[in-house]
Amino acid sequence: MSVTRGHALYPGSFDVVTYGHLDIIRRASTIFSRLTVAVAENPQKTKPLFSIAERTEMLREALQEIPNVSVASFRGLTVEFAREIGAHVIIRGLRAVSDFEYELQMAMMNESLYPDICTVFMAPAPSYSFLSSSLVKEIARYGGDVSAYVPAPVVLRLKEKLMESK
Amino acid sequence: MSVTRGHALYPGSFDVVTYGHLDIIRRASTIFSRLTVAVAENPQKTKPLFSIAERTEMLREALQEIPNVSVASFRGLTVEFAREIGAHVIIRGLRAVSDFEYELQMAMMNESLYPDICTVFMAPAPSYSFLSSSLVKEIARYGGDVSAYVPAPVVLRLKEKLMESK
Amino acid sequence: MSVTRGHALYPGSFDVVTYGHLDIIRRASTIFSRLTVAVAENPQKTKPLFSIAERTEMLREALQEIPNVSVASFRGLTVEFAREIGAHVIIRGLRAVSDFEYELQMAMMNESLYPDICTVFMAPAPSYSFLSSSLVKEIARYGGDVSAYVPAPVVLRLKEKLMESK
Amino acid sequence: MSVTRGHALYPGSFDVVTYGHLDIIRRASTIFSRLTVAVAENPQKTKPLFSIAERTEMLREALQEIPNVSVASFRGLTVEFAREIGAHVIIRGLRAVSDFEYELQMAMMNESLYPDICTVFMAPAPSYSFLSSSLVKEIARYGGDVSAYVPAPVVLRLKEKLMESK
Amino acid sequence: MSVTRGHALYPGSFDVVTYGHLDIIRRASTIFSRLTVAVAENPQKTKPLFSIAERTEMLREALQEIPNVSVASFRGLTVEFAREIGAHVIIRGLRAVSDFEYELQMAMMNESLYPDICTVFMAPAPSYSFLSSSLVKEIARYGGDVSAYVPAPVVLRLKEKLMESK
Amino acid sequence: MSVTRGHALYPGSFDVVTYGHLDIIRRASTIFSRLTVAVAENPQKTKPLFSIAERTEMLREALQEIPNVSVASFRGLTVEFAREIGAHVIIRGLRAVSDFEYELQMAMMNESLYPDICTVFMAPAPSYSFLSSSLVKEIARYGGDVSAYVPAPVVLRLKEKLMESK
Repeated sequence: MSVTRGHALYPGSFDVVTYGHLDIIRRASTIFSRLTVAVAENPQKTKPLFSIAERTEMLREALQEIPNVSVASFRGLTVEFAREIGAHVIIRGLRAVSDFEYELQMAMMNESLYPDICTVFMAPAPSYSFLSSSLVKEIARYGGDVSAYVPAPVVLRLKEKLMESK
Repeated sequence: MSVTRGHALYPGSFDVVTYGHLDIIRRASTIFSRLTVAVAENPQKTKPLFSIAERTEMLREALQEIPNVSVASFRGLTVEFAREIGAHVIIRGLRAVSDFEYELQMAMMNESLYPDICTVFMAPAPSYSFLSSSLVKEIARYGGDVSAYVPAPVVLRLKEKLMESK
Repeated sequence: MSVTRGHALYPGSFDVVTYGHLDIIRRASTIFSRLTVAVAENPQKTKPLFSIAERTEMLREALQEIPNVSVASFRGLTVEFAREIGAHVIIRGLRAVSDFEYELQMAMMNESLYPDICTVFMAPAPSYSFLSSSLVKEIARYGGDVSAYVPAPVVLRLKEKLMESK
Repeated sequence: MSVTRGHALYPGSFDVVTYGHLDIIRRASTIFSRLTVAVAENPQKTKPLFSIAERTEMLREALQEIPNVSVASFRGLTVEFAREIGAHVIIRGLRAVSDFEYELQMAMMNESLYPDICTVFMAPAPSYSFLSSSLVKEIARYGGDVSAYVPAPVVLRLKEKLMESK
Repeated sequence: MSVTRGHALYPGSFDVVTYGHLDIIRRASTIFSRLTVAVAENPQKTKPLFSIAERTEMLREALQEIPNVSVASFRGLTVEFAREIGAHVIIRGLRAVSDFEYELQMAMMNESLYPDICTVFMAPAPSYSFLSSSLVKEIARYGGDVSAYVPAPVVLRLKEKLMESK
Repeated sequence: MSVTRGHALYPGSFDVVTYGHLDIIRRASTIFSRLTVAVAENPQKTKPLFSIAERTEMLREALQEIPNVSVASFRGLTVEFAREIGAHVIIRGLRAVSDFEYELQMAMMNESLYPDICTVFMAPAPSYSFLSSSLVKEIARYGGDVSAYVPAPVVLRLKEKLMESK
């Protein structure tokens, strides 16, 4: 399996994708020749609001205009999936110190497993630095307006989904 | 001035270059097609031990075998220099939380000045995560053995320099 | 809905109220002309030990002697409740860095939703800086003495409640 | 000496005042009935770029339209000055974790000296969270454009001052 | 109950014991004349992978060659157990800032309960600083190689246990 | 040179010794059979207020009643001095996250130089967690009352010293 220079993987839960994620994706797409954004299935974590299928669909809608970006999903170790798709780089977003420490630990563990695959960190624009998927869902749950934080189609889907679950 | 995709700048004081820096440079050189390692002249900072010329020389010695890496020096704003040489990406190393906050602030300020230039962060291998140029100089100053932290030619230069300044 | 200058909201789980909370409330009551301490119902969080009714009662007992403080409870977004009761300011306690990051994120999100409502942070006295409701409950669960951390009526209620649940 | 409820002190170096400071001042002025913004003379610190007189003048220019805000300068302990002017509250801005720790330490020391005076912390809007006076001066020093970070009259003064010192 | 100088307690979940833990144990065993490593039963926490019996067994296997170390398990407050076995010191490992804050809070609470018992913190060797039991289990769950992180008998037990639970 | 189990070194600037330092010393003296408190001469650092001789004298006055504690001073690497006096353990105080990171880096560097010497961290009692020598000196400089932070003889010496330097 060959690891291609310039192919990067941006993994995450994306439950739901925010303008913070999109800012990182847009900038990463100008650095790497190919970028795979991948929804991680994590059976250990607390139940997500949207299914893997719904989350990849929302990402595809939001990213269809960036030519070198594709969307996927995976189960298992991130570093294993990077290797499978021939990605040389894993991209992780950093907002806060608490992110930073967990991410650093993860990156070091990953590089200890596969030294060929590097992790690079990127920060969202300051105006998105306070955004988190879980805060967006909490606001939406109580009827707050989240159109400043997520794309319009995600706003709609949040409304539908939260209506269902009532 | 054209901004070439794939050209990255790794700026720093490099007073002195450590195995932690070299680890980041080696890995960055596998991601980006071209990497410029540049010594920053910073007249505001406390007096460095080595001159700009000595620091670029030590970097050149240490990096001569990596073909896509070149060494430079600059004065002024990092982001301005990145633009001058056509670098699209600024690379910064992250060791600790305190690094992280200052670096994040810097990255945001830089991206607010030139939105086309991205900052990406990389972490050194865990075994180098405790290394810092200033600790190396402090140990050398008191005659301690620093050969596990810096390349052999840097060990020699440290000895010479510290003998001079006595 | 008019927003009255000088009315502040101090929201929290208060499961159970500690001397750390009371220290912040006492000091906040000297700054703001009116202070509402409000128990937040959070159906997302792990099951609390005490009901909303019990928690508001314990707060009322502890706060009855401070004339400009009233106790309430709410469900939904904190910022929405602040607006409903005409509070201009949200008060949050800060103990540690981990608190700080989440709280900052929350404050920024809230101010982005309602720019008229400010969040201000207060720190408890140093001798209470290590106190947390969950540590108090853990100590009480194993029969430890918590009378230095919570008011006497709360000590009693903890004993009763933990006896019930055995 | 009587301590008036509702009078707050916002102390700082303000070398130079940024939109981040002004955001905090504007919001604090809606909470407290009276706000004193005061330039601290700190003979221990590294030499400032502007004199106390220049810094208070720049603040006055920037704040003249907010009626309940006045500008002052002082030498000595902040808490001592707060007491002198009858301020009950000290306001401190928080951007990052490193700020937070020093500020918390300071607040606790101050409250241990004068328990009647409280410190409250406020965060600037996210888009100003990366701003710092020293970064602004560094950019200006190298001819960068700082008009997005400081008011127009401060941009002018920075140019003049940095021309002088060449 | 007499408190013997030189007897230290190193409590933890040890689900599973890693080379990071063993590094701290080995070094602590050179400082204290007697060291008890104790598995904490914590009914509040999420279900562990291994039973208390299995975890103490794995520890015994890994530690049998260090003469002054014994293995135990306990339920209840750590500080209470320390007192029971006559340990004067509680040892806690520190990897990251997030560890540090929780551990500090815990230590202060414990010292407030029993002032005679001190908490001391130790850091693992840098090359183990990124190791965590939960990351090891996650890698093992997906068939990754964990032999660099845990002793050989633990590698085997992880394989067996994860096969059972499929 | 033999390294004695149970001999610990507590190094620092101690310019000036505070109740926070004394709290750590008192507790460390109950853990280790012998404790050397040593003033570090650091020619790199900013000029201290008191000479090495004055600082060791103040420590001796404060510690004369603890039988297993002695006071010394040294120049050079801490770890080198530890080895010289046969100390097996270096004790460092931890107050805040910023302390923690620098201290961890230092500890790892020291253990990489001399693997036989361990660093252990201790936290002061919560009520001293905000204390720092530099804040004490700043308060004293402006005539504030520091008798709650440092022993009575240190209060006197601060007054004398600050009078001289006027």
